[in-house]
Amino acid sequence: MLRKRSNAEEARELFLNAFQPLSSTEILPIEDCDGRILACDIKAAINVPHYRRAAMDGFAVIASDTLGAGSSSPVILNLRKSIEKGACVRVHTGSPMPAGADAVVMVEDTVLHSEKVEVFTQIHPLKNVGEIGEDIQKDDIILKEGHRLRPCDIAILASLGMGSVAVFRKPLVAIIPTGEELVARGKEIREGEVYETNGLMASLYMRKWGGDTKLFDIVTDDPEKIKEAVKRALDADMVIISGGTSVGKRDYVPSVIGSLGNLLVHGIGISPGKPTALGIIKGKPVVCMPGYPVAGLVALYFFARAALRKLGHLPEEQERTVRAVLSEKIPGRIGFKTFARVKLETPYLNTGSRAVPLAIHGAGILSSVSKADGFVIIPESVEGYDKGEEVEVVLIE
Amino acid sequence: MLRKRSNAEEARELFLNAFQPLSSTEILPIEDCDGRILACDIKAAINVPHYRRAAMDGFAVIASDTLGAGSSSPVILNLRKSIEKGACVRVHTGSPMPAGADAVVMVEDTVLHSEKVEVFTQIHPLKNVGEIGEDIQKDDIILKEGHRLRPCDIAILASLGMGSVAVFRKPLVAIIPTGEELVARGKEIREGEVYETNGLMASLYMRKWGGDTKLFDIVTDDPEKIKEAVKRALDADMVIISGGTSVGKRDYVPSVIGSLGNLLVHGIGISPGKPTALGIIKGKPVVCMPGYPVAGLVALYFFARAALRKLGHLPEEQERTVRAVLSEKIPGRIGFKTFARVKLETPYLNTGSRAVPLAIHGAGILSSVSKADGFVIIPESVEGYDKGEEVEVVLIE
Repeated sequence: MLRKRSNAEEARELFLNAFQPLSSTEILPIEDCDGRILACDIKAAINVPHYRRAAMDGFAVIASDTLGAGSSSPVILNLRKSIEKGACVRVHTGSPMPAGADAVVMVEDTVLHSEKVEVFTQIHPLKNVGEIGEDIQKDDIILKEGHRLRPCDIAILASLGMGSVAVFRKPLVAIIPTGEELVARGKEIREGEVYETNGLMASLYMRKWGGDTKLFDIVTDDPEKIKEAVKRALDADMVIISGGTSVGKRDYVPSVIGSLGNLLVHGIGISPGKPTALGIIKGKPVVCMPGYPVAGLVALYFFARAALRKLGHLPEEQERTVRAVLSEKIPGRIGFKTFARVKLETPYLNTGSRAVPLAIHGAGILSSVSKADGFVIIPESVEGYDKGEEVEVVLIE
Repeated sequence: MLRKRSNAEEARELFLNAFQPLSSTEILPIEDCDGRILACDIKAAINVPHYRRAAMDGFAVIASDTLGAGSSSPVILNLRKSIEKGACVRVHTGSPMPAGADAVVMVEDTVLHSEKVEVFTQIHPLKNVGEIGEDIQKDDIILKEGHRLRPCDIAILASLGMGSVAVFRKPLVAIIPTGEELVARGKEIREGEVYETNGLMASLYMRKWGGDTKLFDIVTDDPEKIKEAVKRALDADMVIISGGTSVGKRDYVPSVIGSLGNLLVHGIGISPGKPTALGIIKGKPVVCMPGYPVAGLVALYFFARAALRKLGHLPEEQERTVRAVLSEKIPGRIGFKTFARVKLETPYLNTGSRAVPLAIHGAGILSSVSKADGFVIIPESVEGYDKGEEVEVVLIE
């Protein structure tokens, strides 16, 4: 089945169309909602401001009293506690406007002499006055369902006096590392053993991208044990299984998916990452990422992230990219979407910076990712990019 | 003093040169280190892999035994438990190489008949063999001090068997909202009162950008009370004070900074945000952000974020930006770095998308930020950008 290779975009589309976003929501204190997705429209319960206010520090006046004032011909007003003709009242930004006043002269345009205020500018009615509802009108829809809350949006909720808000629940992603050669950190390793890294990496990316995660203990290459772990993982909203996706004698993962649900694709035109498999069990998306760490990372970026977004109502986010000039040729692979690792030469955020390919190593070389700043993605139909060509580099977060 | 206006970049430079990065570090479990900054170089304590391994599923062989094999002329080897001339041993990706074998034939290039293996390709020595230290060489410096750890880097630490790592402590930012008109959420507001929003917004941005925060209770406009709060805040690594930075009668914050330490600048050529003040108390950076929320946001983006980065050894991060075409003219303000809020029309990540200015409202209008997708930054010497001009939009996170 692996030799039958699906197109990367088609596989992703097929996968994403096979499950629904989560509908469950939770109510959280607004200060815990940065990055969370609103689960309902927000209608303003009050006007902001809810009273007529001064928009500057200065003196509230009757605008017509300033008629004829200028920089060399001040009008003189009496400083009072309330407004009457020829009087003014001290206000500061945010003060309620005194009854009868219709404008505010900025303090910079005045000189105060005990009980007299010289006004050096003529102002029109409503100048420097904040009307009721000027910022937010009561009953207006301020933010819509599906909006991802930023700190400045949360400040809006606070300005309405809201203490909590309904957001979509974060998708819970269960992550199952498989492989009889894997050993948990903190243990000694012997010949034939390596430390588990892919499950941890998957867990950290899923959290970074907006999910909650549950990282399972390592499962050995035994189809019954894998099946049992996947069944337990179905409490979660999504499952990622690392390893066991190839065509080796011990690669049981795709057939386990097929036995429990629907194996949609196995063998995808991404390089590295060809052994990736995608499936659905009980309506839940399952990503089988290759055990080779670089291939696993590509599967996370291209498939697991997309599934997480759909589940969690997360908006398509712009990838952080930079444009750079290739220091040498990078070969593509016809029929594969190739993710070539590159290092950017500092100062790497500037135009004209150079991208140095690191593709000399294979998909098993985790350290090549750590040396890489990003991927250059070469489409299926392109033979490669030449030395000196300007390319877009997707930064590895 | 406010009328004396500092250039934005000069003010920032002066400010950043007036304090040192934090030197304190902490040791954390690696799974808690996404986004954290390494406080030491990481030297590999082991080789990865630490044994000679098969890099493919297949059969370990003596390469010279495959001489002459081809797709129509297989060589036949005996399947054994150990290597001898004419024999092969089943291996899978990651298996230790059997003694005497020097290459691996991929399973795809073989056909197995009980105890005999037909090999359809000739391979050279070391083919599909992962040498000791191929990924990471013992004693190599794998990651350097100052590197921001990504999930893929943490996977590298895991591959070395590391359970914890030394990172720089997150800067602790104390945030003091000031203003006698401010009311905490959960209370009723009366005329002349508004809910506190800036302190919350500052706290959420500082956390998003890599700090820890401590949000103080609201302090009224009383210089002694502000002074007392600032003194308590000096337990933190950095202080942000919101409000009270203007020239009104109740704007005591800059003079409090001056009395406790060194007020570096007050009045900066940013629009909105002119009343921003910057100072140093006991070697700790203090940002006084204007009470007007849009101005406060600009001060956070331009000054507080830069200070946090320096304190926390955080690398300069690329802003998320998109290019868009202005739907109408936006005016700059000569002598000011102007932050014009714009909304992007969907699909806003595509080339040729339109940026619609929202600058019709003033700095007091928080809802204009919530409607905005980003800022167009107009330099001090530019009169504005014309309708139809392509501009860079810095997305508001």
